[in-house]
Amino acid sequence: MPSPPSRRPSLRVAELAERLGCAFEGDGELRVDGVASLADARENDLGFVRSEKLAEELAASRAGAVIAPPGLDAGGRPVIRSHNPGLHFARAVALVSPPVRPGPGVHASAQVDPSAEVDATASVGPLCSVGARVRVGSGSVLHPQVTVYPDAEIGADCTLHARVVVREGTCIGDRVVLQPGVVLGGDGFGYVFDEDGGWEHIPHSGRVVIEDDVEIGANSTVDRSMFGDTRIGRGSKLDNLVMVGHNCEIGEHAVIAAQAGMAGSARLGRRVVMMGQSALAGHQEIGDGVFVGARAAVRGDVAPGTRVWGTPHLEEGRWFRSIAVFAKLPQLVKRVRAIEKKLGLRPPRD
Amino acid sequence: MPSPPSRRPSLRVAELAERLGCAFEGDGELRVDGVASLADARENDLGFVRSEKLAEELAASRAGAVIAPPGLDAGGRPVIRSHNPGLHFARAVALVSPPVRPGPGVHASAQVDPSAEVDATASVGPLCSVGARVRVGSGSVLHPQVTVYPDAEIGADCTLHARVVVREGTCIGDRVVLQPGVVLGGDGFGYVFDEDGGWEHIPHSGRVVIEDDVEIGANSTVDRSMFGDTRIGRGSKLDNLVMVGHNCEIGEHAVIAAQAGMAGSARLGRRVVMMGQSALAGHQEIGDGVFVGARAAVRGDVAPGTRVWGTPHLEEGRWFRSIAVFAKLPQLVKRVRAIEKKLGLRPPRD
Amino acid sequence: MPSPPSRRPSLRVAELAERLGCAFEGDGELRVDGVASLADARENDLGFVRSEKLAEELAASRAGAVIAPPGLDAGGRPVIRSHNPGLHFARAVALVSPPVRPGPGVHASAQVDPSAEVDATASVGPLCSVGARVRVGSGSVLHPQVTVYPDAEIGADCTLHARVVVREGTCIGDRVVLQPGVVLGGDGFGYVFDEDGGWEHIPHSGRVVIEDDVEIGANSTVDRSMFGDTRIGRGSKLDNLVMVGHNCEIGEHAVIAAQAGMAGSARLGRRVVMMGQSALAGHQEIGDGVFVGARAAVRGDVAPGTRVWGTPHLEEGRWFRSIAVFAKLPQLVKRVRAIEKKLGLRPPRD
Repeated sequence: MPSPPSRRPSLRVAELAERLGCAFEGDGELRVDGVASLADARENDLGFVRSEKLAEELAASRAGAVIAPPGLDAGGRPVIRSHNPGLHFARAVALVSPPVRPGPGVHASAQVDPSAEVDATASVGPLCSVGARVRVGSGSVLHPQVTVYPDAEIGADCTLHARVVVREGTCIGDRVVLQPGVVLGGDGFGYVFDEDGGWEHIPHSGRVVIEDDVEIGANSTVDRSMFGDTRIGRGSKLDNLVMVGHNCEIGEHAVIAAQAGMAGSARLGRRVVMMGQSALAGHQEIGDGVFVGARAAVRGDVAPGTRVWGTPHLEEGRWFRSIAVFAKLPQLVKRVRAIEKKLGLRPPRD
Repeated sequence: MPSPPSRRPSLRVAELAERLGCAFEGDGELRVDGVASLADARENDLGFVRSEKLAEELAASRAGAVIAPPGLDAGGRPVIRSHNPGLHFARAVALVSPPVRPGPGVHASAQVDPSAEVDATASVGPLCSVGARVRVGSGSVLHPQVTVYPDAEIGADCTLHARVVVREGTCIGDRVVLQPGVVLGGDGFGYVFDEDGGWEHIPHSGRVVIEDDVEIGANSTVDRSMFGDTRIGRGSKLDNLVMVGHNCEIGEHAVIAAQAGMAGSARLGRRVVMMGQSALAGHQEIGDGVFVGARAAVRGDVAPGTRVWGTPHLEEGRWFRSIAVFAKLPQLVKRVRAIEKKLGLRPPRD
Repeated sequence: MPSPPSRRPSLRVAELAERLGCAFEGDGELRVDGVASLADARENDLGFVRSEKLAEELAASRAGAVIAPPGLDAGGRPVIRSHNPGLHFARAVALVSPPVRPGPGVHASAQVDPSAEVDATASVGPLCSVGARVRVGSGSVLHPQVTVYPDAEIGADCTLHARVVVREGTCIGDRVVLQPGVVLGGDGFGYVFDEDGGWEHIPHSGRVVIEDDVEIGANSTVDRSMFGDTRIGRGSKLDNLVMVGHNCEIGEHAVIAAQAGMAGSARLGRRVVMMGQSALAGHQEIGDGVFVGARAAVRGDVAPGTRVWGTPHLEEGRWFRSIAVFAKLPQLVKRVRAIEKKLGLRPPRD
């Protein structure tokens, strides 16, 4: 296997702390050029510790510097102090190991309609296709092979990775990140019978609206609405291979894990969490803060704050109690049979 | 958020009715330029009503005109009469709000093999790649970035959205619609052990056949067969992220909802319905008119007309009865324990 | 429907046998130009038989020649003898019906960064995009529209089908096959709370490593790790629409069927099998040779060699016994009720 990609920038701990807005202790001149888990860290890596619980791992680690809560003994190595080490570590990663980011301008091989408005600071990569009247805001990056249909709008500082498709009229806010292969605005799955008993598609004249700070994972799909908007609320994060049906409305700060799906016209409140492979049956209200467990399938409305699991879903506690009995059903049958014997009852024929 | 895309055509109600082949009542000169639900409609929008049940919503609606069954009181607004308001509304949407449709011809940036035959009325968009001996029929549209491998055939009036991939030898009928990211003809998942205990792929020399009027949703995949055809029957509709394994045969007018999957060599009759995230285990016969409930997983054959749910599947009624008991299993255990106590039986050790 | 693609090469049975390293009996001069199942075979097709069980089908088949175990009566037709007919048939298919394979060289429409190193024997198809410092090994084929981000490495004799995306720093071994639409190295799904209660992405500085002889199905996704590697072990085969989360490690020779998913940091031993739509909850050890049944959802570790089914998973035998009772739960309730009546116990209020 060939070696990993090389030549990351290096940063002094003092500079890193300053850019993070944190205090530091120890040798601020030490340079870090990578990030790693405590177990894997080398001398020039930055690590992080959330709490005293990891004191032992920290002691054993070769990490050159760490981000740690105030007061935690960093064993003499330079330490950046934070009350939220996870958050500041995430930001440190972005500084130490910045993502690939092409420069501004439209690549010569990209096909951009003359009526499209691409901000001068935006980047349109090789072999992109940008349709009529499209707008691309400042600082946004279209990686290679992105296709944007006519009349779509893309805000500022967005990242559209390779092979994203944005269908006509889709509206994307600021700082939106779309992983490779995302499809926004595909036609919704709505049909009526024609005169001969075949299915005839209902044209979907609505659109998809992606609010600010939304991020969507690879090969996920969000269908356009029949009319009105399919909407994904500000700050929501969707994982890979997620399906959002036509006319769904997802509130702010949702977390939708991989391979989850929701049928048409589901309405999700704020801060809903759906774990992997879970599903919503559609035409339902999912209240604020609802937690949908992995692989759960939800029919009908769910009250705010409820945690649900199972197919079809039950409230979390009920499901866990039922599933515990499920695992012992053969024994339960034996107990019933023993009782029947004792009472001289015949077992049913089945 | 920026404003929605603008400038739709407007149509007179009389003209719309004529093009739909329907009678109308009221002011035929009123122009509509959009479609909407009754709740959201504005003065120049067309709405529709299926039955008297929505009379109240209709009375409250601002819709300028509606499609409604004969006799239903439209409150004085122009009304187009139809015994199938849903169907005629679908067709009205296509007239009032026609989809993006590029003109005929091959874009200068498309890479089309000289041996390919593209009908003069077909459209091959920017950055498409069309292989040797491919045929594209009259009126078909390839949106940007479509890839067609050699020896594939695409019928008339098809729509292939951006980034569709059609592998070699795939055969597509007329009026087929493929949403962005669909993959037709990927190699099937079939392996044999080699001499060293590794997996060796069985080359798939068969093909995929998509019959007329089939529509397939974004990022769905249909694998080519080992030999013979993987076939999707006329008029069938597949949603997003659906998986069709090698050598499957889907009959006419199937409806396969999002994230459903079928393993190899499943044979589906006519008018089968599979709801979201359902699955077929493969090598099985699914009879005409079978309904597979959401998230159901079906092993073995299913007789025509049967409705099934659950993992593994049960007949619908049985599954609903069992799942109702499942939710109360803890109480059932308590009842059994109470009986045991009364009888002086010891609970099992487990 | 138009006719299937034409003009396959034809091979003499004697030549085929020699290239397979097998003996043959009968007329070695017969030419075969296709492969087929026994039922569908024509006079110039090659078929195969695993065992005596198919003797009747073989007798009725029109196949011109077959691959069969030593001693099995081939009815006078030329027969290639093999102790592993499936394996030799797979290899015969590749000879009789070789896959589409473009010639070496970089297509004029491909966009290849000057710093990329593409072996002279490799093929980079139309409209591919290859980033800075990418390496493509000897004999590898990039079909049209593949995107490779900077610093990725692709070994020898790989096949990357149309629209594959390989993100930065991804490392691909030799003889790897990626079906259309595969995404390698998308950002992992990891977030921390920011100061305002929103989700902030943790940049993923790690990479994806795909070892030799791995094959991945259409539109599957493998996320890059937070740090370190997401790794798919040598010889593993993944089907379509599979999700591999960040930091997962899959051992050698795994088989992961369609629509299966694994959350972050799952570690799979050697020869793990996951059937369709199954799932791993993440942060867990799955031992060598574990079999995860279709639609199973696995939490926590699983010991080597275990077979599991269900949501949440149970050991195979337990699950099958419980699911059998599940189907008869209504009867079980009736039995308990009958006992309660006999004992004069009141049914619970529920």
